[in-house]
Amino acid sequence: MIVTVTPNPALDVSYRVDKLAPGTTHRVRSVRERAGGKGFNVSRVLHELGVATLAIGPVGGVLGESIRADLLAAGIRHALLAVDAPTRMTVAVVDEEDATLFNEAGAALLDTEWDRLLDLVRARLVGADVVVCSGSLPLGSPRDTCARIVGIARDAGIPVVVDTSGPALLAAAQAGADVVKPNAAELREVVDADDPVAGAEALRAAGAGAVVLSSGPDGMVAVTGEGRWRAIPPFPVRGNPTGAGDAAVAALANGLVEQSSWPMRLRAAVAWSAAAVAAPVAGSVDLALLHRLYEEVAVEAF
Amino acid sequence: MIVTVTPNPALDVSYRVDKLAPGTTHRVRSVRERAGGKGFNVSRVLHELGVATLAIGPVGGVLGESIRADLLAAGIRHALLAVDAPTRMTVAVVDEEDATLFNEAGAALLDTEWDRLLDLVRARLVGADVVVCSGSLPLGSPRDTCARIVGIARDAGIPVVVDTSGPALLAAAQAGADVVKPNAAELREVVDADDPVAGAEALRAAGAGAVVLSSGPDGMVAVTGEGRWRAIPPFPVRGNPTGAGDAAVAALANGLVEQSSWPMRLRAAVAWSAAAVAAPVAGSVDLALLHRLYEEVAVEAF
Repeated sequence: MIVTVTPNPALDVSYRVDKLAPGTTHRVRSVRERAGGKGFNVSRVLHELGVATLAIGPVGGVLGESIRADLLAAGIRHALLAVDAPTRMTVAVVDEEDATLFNEAGAALLDTEWDRLLDLVRARLVGADVVVCSGSLPLGSPRDTCARIVGIARDAGIPVVVDTSGPALLAAAQAGADVVKPNAAELREVVDADDPVAGAEALRAAGAGAVVLSSGPDGMVAVTGEGRWRAIPPFPVRGNPTGAGDAAVAALANGLVEQSSWPMRLRAAVAWSAAAVAAPVAGSVDLALLHRLYEEVAVEAF
Repeated sequence: MIVTVTPNPALDVSYRVDKLAPGTTHRVRSVRERAGGKGFNVSRVLHELGVATLAIGPVGGVLGESIRADLLAAGIRHALLAVDAPTRMTVAVVDEEDATLFNEAGAALLDTEWDRLLDLVRARLVGADVVVCSGSLPLGSPRDTCARIVGIARDAGIPVVVDTSGPALLAAAQAGADVVKPNAAELREVVDADDPVAGAEALRAAGAGAVVLSSGPDGMVAVTGEGRWRAIPPFPVRGNPTGAGDAAVAALANGLVEQSSWPMRLRAAVAWSAAAVAAPVAGSVDLALLHRLYEEVAVEAF
């Protein structure tokens, strides 16, 4: 079972409009809402692919109620901590050409609430094979939040995948996260290296077990203690890239559960990620495309 | 006491961003939320200016809770009908230059819920001097909703101001609304006349007592059974025009309560409206500016 932790959940609202024109008034043609935040998206992908998962996160305010209701409706197992701070929203405005995103930062939790969230994670590790800590932290959060989750999981002998950025990413690597998944920009932000592979090795030297670098349509690179691999999608996939990284994290976590080889994990990460681009909303994959992609992803050692 | 009815309330959310750029991801710098919908804005202006008011409307879902909480926090007296349909949201994205608005349409109420809303209005007319029905109707609503409210108020001998558009505006005029307040585009939509004053007379012939035409910064025209007047703001006011029409409706309703002359009502409508443009959010007026404007508005018969 894969436990995901989402430190900064959001209600993701999607508006369809005819054509976004700054400075004008738009009639919203359709509204879609779902529980969002990267860890919840990881759980959603896992749930869709039949992998047991438990989604943990703090929720508050009326949008916290919406998050709870949506996870219930989707049948995703969850353990939510009620907090004072109201859950944030993100709004995606989608027209024929583009998606334009507005991301609220999220309100700070109290220190005691962070402690209670970590207690909740600790209490729910029974039966867990992998822990995932994914997404941003609310403004003003202690930067060691993901690192503390890494520590809790490692104390329980459970591997951890971390997908975050900035000081929280570095702290998670230093705490010994088994896998971290930055993109090139996120990597440059935390290590002093122009070359991505050198940067990944620096993050490993800091304490991370393996570093998986995502490069969008160019595929992924894994820099691990067992070797380095590169995997490329077999053909370009058009669609909505939001959530593609979450599908990759889901694949990497599942690879840890299955104890598959690194080339196989990387192949799955690229295939799940591309299949997520083809699905209309974050947290879903195009299943027909997934199988075709998976067969055809090229993986090479370097 | 002025009773306002808002058939289609909304939680108005305002996002401050650095610069709106379609197709990109924006960090939201600040978030503001308030109970919106035109009738609620009318009550907010009245409340701010010390005029007794009661705000009536249907609310549902988690955003309905936010509406209720915001009206409570603002100290605005209200009587809300709980309905199945979730209350809608509007999002205003504000950068240095522009405001860009996204308006959800609002979900349909059940026929029985409309009946209950009208029963609620009827029950709360004790002590009412004026009724206001203001704003859009949710998609698929019976077009006679405002007209039925006009009927209820007239049966109780209470004058009614209606600010809506399309078939609902025409039906309200035909039901004998005392004052309707279309802009030129809304007027052209319902009567076959190129000239605004001829159009206003056509709406009066249909049954409306008086027609007040709003023309934004160019002021307002009143076409009434007692004469025609034009009023113009004394100087241009820069700011946020959202809610300026609601302030004008508040002034017109207050003029009915005070039984002031039409020139005085029109003067107040132009002054309150311009003072609302100078206030940062809908439902507020710039009080210092209001007094200056009110002294200087030019009103002329024609």
